[in-house]
Amino acid sequence: MFNVALLGAGRIGQIHAGNIAAHPDCRLVRVMDVYAPAAQALAAKYGAQVSTLDQVLNDDNVDIVAICSATDTHADLIEAAARAGKAIFCEKPVDLSLERVERCLATVREADVPLMIGFNRRFDPSMAGLQQSLVNGEIGNTELVTISSRDPAAPSADYVKTSGGLFRDMTIHDLDMARWLLQEEPVSVFASASSLVDPEIKAAGDVDTAVITLTCASGKIAVITNSRRASYGYDQRIEVHGSKGMLAVANHPESSLIKSVAEGVVAQKPMHFFLQRYGDAYRLELGGLIEHLKNGTAIHPSGEDGLQALLLADAALESLRTGKAVQPGNRV
Amino acid sequence: MFNVALLGAGRIGQIHAGNIAAHPDCRLVRVMDVYAPAAQALAAKYGAQVSTLDQVLNDDNVDIVAICSATDTHADLIEAAARAGKAIFCEKPVDLSLERVERCLATVREADVPLMIGFNRRFDPSMAGLQQSLVNGEIGNTELVTISSRDPAAPSADYVKTSGGLFRDMTIHDLDMARWLLQEEPVSVFASASSLVDPEIKAAGDVDTAVITLTCASGKIAVITNSRRASYGYDQRIEVHGSKGMLAVANHPESSLIKSVAEGVVAQKPMHFFLQRYGDAYRLELGGLIEHLKNGTAIHPSGEDGLQALLLADAALESLRTGKAVQPGNRV
Amino acid sequence: MFNVALLGAGRIGQIHAGNIAAHPDCRLVRVMDVYAPAAQALAAKYGAQVSTLDQVLNDDNVDIVAICSATDTHADLIEAAARAGKAIFCEKPVDLSLERVERCLATVREADVPLMIGFNRRFDPSMAGLQQSLVNGEIGNTELVTISSRDPAAPSADYVKTSGGLFRDMTIHDLDMARWLLQEEPVSVFASASSLVDPEIKAAGDVDTAVITLTCASGKIAVITNSRRASYGYDQRIEVHGSKGMLAVANHPESSLIKSVAEGVVAQKPMHFFLQRYGDAYRLELGGLIEHLKNGTAIHPSGEDGLQALLLADAALESLRTGKAVQPGNRV
Amino acid sequence: MFNVALLGAGRIGQIHAGNIAAHPDCRLVRVMDVYAPAAQALAAKYGAQVSTLDQVLNDDNVDIVAICSATDTHADLIEAAARAGKAIFCEKPVDLSLERVERCLATVREADVPLMIGFNRRFDPSMAGLQQSLVNGEIGNTELVTISSRDPAAPSADYVKTSGGLFRDMTIHDLDMARWLLQEEPVSVFASASSLVDPEIKAAGDVDTAVITLTCASGKIAVITNSRRASYGYDQRIEVHGSKGMLAVANHPESSLIKSVAEGVVAQKPMHFFLQRYGDAYRLELGGLIEHLKNGTAIHPSGEDGLQALLLADAALESLRTGKAVQPGNRV
Repeated sequence: MFNVALLGAGRIGQIHAGNIAAHPDCRLVRVMDVYAPAAQALAAKYGAQVSTLDQVLNDDNVDIVAICSATDTHADLIEAAARAGKAIFCEKPVDLSLERVERCLATVREADVPLMIGFNRRFDPSMAGLQQSLVNGEIGNTELVTISSRDPAAPSADYVKTSGGLFRDMTIHDLDMARWLLQEEPVSVFASASSLVDPEIKAAGDVDTAVITLTCASGKIAVITNSRRASYGYDQRIEVHGSKGMLAVANHPESSLIKSVAEGVVAQKPMHFFLQRYGDAYRLELGGLIEHLKNGTAIHPSGEDGLQALLLADAALESLRTGKAVQPGNRV
Repeated sequence: MFNVALLGAGRIGQIHAGNIAAHPDCRLVRVMDVYAPAAQALAAKYGAQVSTLDQVLNDDNVDIVAICSATDTHADLIEAAARAGKAIFCEKPVDLSLERVERCLATVREADVPLMIGFNRRFDPSMAGLQQSLVNGEIGNTELVTISSRDPAAPSADYVKTSGGLFRDMTIHDLDMARWLLQEEPVSVFASASSLVDPEIKAAGDVDTAVITLTCASGKIAVITNSRRASYGYDQRIEVHGSKGMLAVANHPESSLIKSVAEGVVAQKPMHFFLQRYGDAYRLELGGLIEHLKNGTAIHPSGEDGLQALLLADAALESLRTGKAVQPGNRV
Repeated sequence: MFNVALLGAGRIGQIHAGNIAAHPDCRLVRVMDVYAPAAQALAAKYGAQVSTLDQVLNDDNVDIVAICSATDTHADLIEAAARAGKAIFCEKPVDLSLERVERCLATVREADVPLMIGFNRRFDPSMAGLQQSLVNGEIGNTELVTISSRDPAAPSADYVKTSGGLFRDMTIHDLDMARWLLQEEPVSVFASASSLVDPEIKAAGDVDTAVITLTCASGKIAVITNSRRASYGYDQRIEVHGSKGMLAVANHPESSLIKSVAEGVVAQKPMHFFLQRYGDAYRLELGGLIEHLKNGTAIHPSGEDGLQALLLADAALESLRTGKAVQPGNRV
Repeated sequence: MFNVALLGAGRIGQIHAGNIAAHPDCRLVRVMDVYAPAAQALAAKYGAQVSTLDQVLNDDNVDIVAICSATDTHADLIEAAARAGKAIFCEKPVDLSLERVERCLATVREADVPLMIGFNRRFDPSMAGLQQSLVNGEIGNTELVTISSRDPAAPSADYVKTSGGLFRDMTIHDLDMARWLLQEEPVSVFASASSLVDPEIKAAGDVDTAVITLTCASGKIAVITNSRRASYGYDQRIEVHGSKGMLAVANHPESSLIKSVAEGVVAQKPMHFFLQRYGDAYRLELGGLIEHLKNGTAIHPSGEDGLQALLLADAALESLRTGKAVQPGNRV
């Protein structure tokens, strides 16, 4: 049984709290949040203790620290937890600055603790099934990966300003997925992008509609299409084309109800957003870290995975500025 | 906050325990099971107390008794809980004997306590959505209901012997669904059935493949097809045809992964069985009782719903014996 | 190269004329119709001659007579063509009277000429593919056949009066399909039916909504659901459940265009009616007769198939009158 | 009634011959082919005359010349037919050389005759329906177009050598589709491509797997993915994302048969290749030219459309050479 301390009791922290409590191998013991009522409510529901960071770090019974706080606290908390010798789960991203990520990962390496980054889609049963089929060779050699990812509606311009922009905030999930499915690092990144959805996003200097093409040395190609808007719900689809066929993950409808009337055959829209669509993934992702702690299996996605995805996002930004294909940068 | 006592800590009791614990308005306080280790494990996981029936019934803090024990204990436990003034949730069926059901429901009426029967499918979001669309008039007047229900594999002949047979054990869910969707009581039942799946089921005097047709006074018809076997998984589909269109609930695949290869386009099978397919329904059904207790909304499915479904199952059995359409019996 | 004479240049005759002209092994040489302009137009388009029945029957160059005239002329024309030694294709039905069908088939047997009945669905590539998969044993032993067949809109009451009613006019296609898929003659027929669609159909003494259950001696069951109305288009679906799986034929949408908007994911309706849905079947069915003439393969559906389907339709009518399962009648 | 002369009686010429014969407003009168037996067979089947080019051009009764001969004869035949005052249908491409296309179109303009280019997909009912929905504003403003186009298997290296390569031979259909759906000329083209399918294609200097991104001045983006191989059949899909939703065209399966077994739910593969998938489009495309001749509606796709698509293909080639986004060239 592993004892977990949760740092951050907001929306995503509450999701993790429920999943920690329901997991047969772990239990939620401490909750920290700068907003005390949130920490209290969550602690009460699951029989955990409201705690300070020091209490978490100094408690030898805490095995795992799960970081679900604001993005700009991630790197500091990872380093603190690493120095305290805790296994760490951290929501993405480690940080928006490559340099800060590098430093943080160096600290984790030095402390020699496990670190898992919350690229939750790797644990979605459909996507994980696709990747497994790929590894099994069910469609031969991979040739082309296409990833469609559209949010149901644009975030506020305020959010956009601090998010790191489309590529570092939203595309980064797709970049991680592309790397995971290509099983090879891209050597070239080209991005086309426009501001079509929201003039305020444009005013904030960001784009909202994008196509990013990644090419590998072997000739494998991946293409990601993104939009900050999809009136029909959260659009999350993947195709992998190989020498012997295609593997695809389709959208998940809100229900299986279908209405056939004079106007057409009307199925339900895809689930609204990530909390619905990736509910299973959130439930399953912690399992990867638990597996590592129990059986020594490799952790993924690792801190290194987080760094590589950020390098690709930065290359996409540079491609957008220059109109050229860009080689993903070497680390700082 | 409602305090719930769970009677029966087996497979289905464990499902309900998790859902009770996760529900924002209730909490699991007592667990009873004739097999002590099962009760202890469940009580430990959710911070409840292992209890005897008397402890449950005499505890004024227990608001709801959830009965998940063996079928032949249901009627007795319902009556005991009713006399103790508890709100009651009971897994189907109340009993296999019409006479015993009648007596049990009389006791409940006398005690004037709420009783909800676990026809879980009414709470499946797809099926509930269908029924709501129907009530909204989205396809005009109902004309024909078709219900497909196939288990992935036949139960043991031993189970079959005590189950009440196909109609009272399995079809009864479909009969309840038919009543709910027809919104009118059938006046005629005709059944065709065969033993094709398992010679031992035949030897036990039961059938495993069936078509049951229900006709209402208004002319509405419902047809149910059942099988104890479906190699491709749990087959649970509904269609309702109305004057202005059709509403349908499709099967739910295990994942959305699709493989296109030289042999064809291969989608995932339907979810394996009821625990997977109706996971959401199990999670949601208690909500109906909670709603009643909080807001006074009507309870459904009620004990009366349980009785009516049994009357239809018995009529189907008689039709099978006689080769004629049978009018569902008056109550004993 | 086979020379074909077409009797009847109406809507369905025109379909056959085009298919005859396009077939690599036959050519349209004569056209007869009581309405001269129809015959002239068709003859002109395909370079055929307008002819009288005598001219058709006395022309030794005519190999095949294709009968697409009014139902009440079928039996007479079949007999005349049979006596003239022609191979015969006749649209269903041979006749609405069992006695007349029997006499007509006797004449054909005596003349020893090939006779094919236009149950076109057997030549639909999807349905023919299903039957072939069944024969190949791809789902093991057949257990249950379900056939859904709904017209987009009710015919006029005038049509209904002369059509022989729902069972002999519309269900007969489904009864033929059931026999073809069961690969065994039903020994019991039960019908439930209502008049819900059109009061004039009811006034004409017919039903418009029906469920027919067929049972075989081996225990195989087939169930047919029919309606004279389906606002979402022509509903033509089949499922066959076997010991190792299910084979199904889905509806064919008008196009593959799908619109995903805030209201849902809207696919196209099924093709409007039989001329669209079974366009391929009409094109392919003559091929069965040509194959027989070229290679001696068995003809199906034969006159006997037409008779057996009528026997089942009559049994369904009797079941409806009596409320009992009926054994299909022996021949008159 | 329009009289059509067919130049080229090969595979695609035979398709057009059948469609011309079946069209209510036209008739096939002359057939020319350098291979006499092909011309003779086709002429005999449809009652047309085998002819020389001069006979076609000098026959005042010939209204339309349909050019289905080898690619390197297209431009010469278009010019000859234009000078003879005929309406012209020509299979794509006009020519592989931009300069030759320019000269040819100048001749057509001078002769002031109608010229239609066989980008058949514009007449596919699903794709035409999508474009119409787009024009109707059903999904608001267009933001992103994605086109998936994969052949079932790679052509011979010999074919590749004379075809103009992937972009000018295969992608050109997708480039025309992109222009038609964007309703705006792209100002920037970026191509990534690899040789993964066939070493001989690589040896011939061509690619077989490609992603092409087109950007418009307004910010609309289109992305095309191509492969010379798809083991699961001809993959032809389109998505258009707009401010209010998505319109998509799915693949068309060979039949609607679906098999559900222990291994999964197996649907049919997409239709094998363009002759099957675009059978309806071939049948309908001539109608555009006939409409123009009867009612003066605009012709599309025009010679200009052919030229613009070629300009995009050439820009894609240059992008591939340079690794940069390329502005489509001005005309020579």
